[in-house]
Amino acid sequence: MSSELHGIDGEERIRASFAKQGLMATLGASLGSVTPGHVEIILTPSPAVSQQHGFVHAGAVSAIADSAAGYAGLSLMPAGRGVLTTEFKINLVAPALGERIVARGEVVKSGRTLTLAQAKVFAQNDGREKLVALLTATLMAIEGQEGVSD
Amino acid sequence: MSSELHGIDGEERIRASFAKQGLMATLGASLGSVTPGHVEIILTPSPAVSQQHGFVHAGAVSAIADSAAGYAGLSLMPAGRGVLTTEFKINLVAPALGERIVARGEVVKSGRTLTLAQAKVFAQNDGREKLVALLTATLMAIEGQEGVSD
Amino acid sequence: MSSELHGIDGEERIRASFAKQGLMATLGASLGSVTPGHVEIILTPSPAVSQQHGFVHAGAVSAIADSAAGYAGLSLMPAGRGVLTTEFKINLVAPALGERIVARGEVVKSGRTLTLAQAKVFAQNDGREKLVALLTATLMAIEGQEGVSD
Amino acid sequence: MSSELHGIDGEERIRASFAKQGLMATLGASLGSVTPGHVEIILTPSPAVSQQHGFVHAGAVSAIADSAAGYAGLSLMPAGRGVLTTEFKINLVAPALGERIVARGEVVKSGRTLTLAQAKVFAQNDGREKLVALLTATLMAIEGQEGVSD
Repeated sequence: MSSELHGIDGEERIRASFAKQGLMATLGASLGSVTPGHVEIILTPSPAVSQQHGFVHAGAVSAIADSAAGYAGLSLMPAGRGVLTTEFKINLVAPALGERIVARGEVVKSGRTLTLAQAKVFAQNDGREKLVALLTATLMAIEGQEGVSD
Repeated sequence: MSSELHGIDGEERIRASFAKQGLMATLGASLGSVTPGHVEIILTPSPAVSQQHGFVHAGAVSAIADSAAGYAGLSLMPAGRGVLTTEFKINLVAPALGERIVARGEVVKSGRTLTLAQAKVFAQNDGREKLVALLTATLMAIEGQEGVSD
Repeated sequence: MSSELHGIDGEERIRASFAKQGLMATLGASLGSVTPGHVEIILTPSPAVSQQHGFVHAGAVSAIADSAAGYAGLSLMPAGRGVLTTEFKINLVAPALGERIVARGEVVKSGRTLTLAQAKVFAQNDGREKLVALLTATLMAIEGQEGVSD
Repeated sequence: MSSELHGIDGEERIRASFAKQGLMATLGASLGSVTPGHVEIILTPSPAVSQQHGFVHAGAVSAIADSAAGYAGLSLMPAGRGVLTTEFKINLVAPALGERIVARGEVVKSGRTLTLAQAKVFAQNDGREKLVALLTATLMAIEGQEGVSD
């Protein structure tokens, strides 16, 4: 049912899938808000996810942005269909430095085979947000596999 | 000196910078061969870097590919200049599954301000290699900062 | 003066630069609205800009989207500075088919050296708009050269 | 038959499709060599394809690069299947200036649904070639439609 999908069950499906992504646990990332077409992933900067100047590594920024975009796409899929990231592009516009790094994924265009999603990544500091990265991803729908295949 | 740069000192500079990237240690990634314009990074698949189907997460694949491309760019920079990834794009063409995942970065075009680099990522299994991803990155030279700012 | 820049003179600079782009005339593209950080370019579908199925060719869609993003970036530059597109990425999400194709460029993040801009391309038909493409571009500021170097 | 496909008939199919792309004629672009997995498109610089500094416009460079990559993908498809460019990314590394601009497309990875192709664009001058752009494209196979849907 579409009401099921876009309601509690859709969110539960995403939370269950996220919990199985070993990399997200390794990075210390957590899921934020999950609504149809919009998913938030949060990362706390630490030496474990840094590059050599102490900023969060572009690889970690990309990982949470890619997952946020992928789960935003998944949030609009009917039960029984998963999504697979086939490609993404990310622009890194400022150093990822702050109390929290938040990736917000959203669906731009949902298609039968392909979905276009974006994620903006912000650094939060003293209650303010600064854009640090913009990701665009192509997701491919896959039958019979739940979840995001990042 | 350019001989310095492209010789042992250039490689040492890259190994020293890599050792300071907390994320690479967190992922369990290691540096492979380092020659002028070419750098290899190796990742061993494990649940810690997986997505929910057990493959290596696109975020981990991207992280080693981005670093391999960035260090390839750095390997051609004179001492005292670092590089910063300003954007990258990655196509994920097969599941990252195997004994070892190897990202091989190389410089396509080296410019004064911007350098274009690529990385191919392969899954190794039973002595064979399969392409799993192709990354293209734009690097910006930065004065007075050694290393790759991923 | 910044008031000069963002006022009539800024717009005139963009209209003068656009008029010198031979490709835009060849494609039959025209400038729409120009405001600080936002520039619109319009293309009328015809066999001259088509691919073999009669839709507007991705190359023509990309050309107007790239120019719209570039001029959006230029619209925020002080007099005497130009911009150069160093890379762009475009997702083509629906066939470019309709009465008019409109590319709307806007600046996402304006930096000293690099500016990140996007353009959305819409097909207009019967008073409705449909998204056909999304472009993301990196622009580099260049001193002493007016205009967009696409 | 695969021998048919990769032989004269495959090439003829591409030449017939190219001839129907109005944009290629408008730009004055022509097909060069066509072999399985590799297609060349040639453009002669002129004011009709320029930007305001007299170089070939990035939109025209992108158009021939995108078509070269698309036709390289098509050259490996069985009869009755076409390809559609779903997204591409291009890095513009030097001004497109010279006697001839040549885009060389090639297939990186051919898949059932998606094909990854690249095109390098060179400026030819006095018998020498200089890289001006690198494009990476995702192509989607489409049943029952011959040709490249750029």
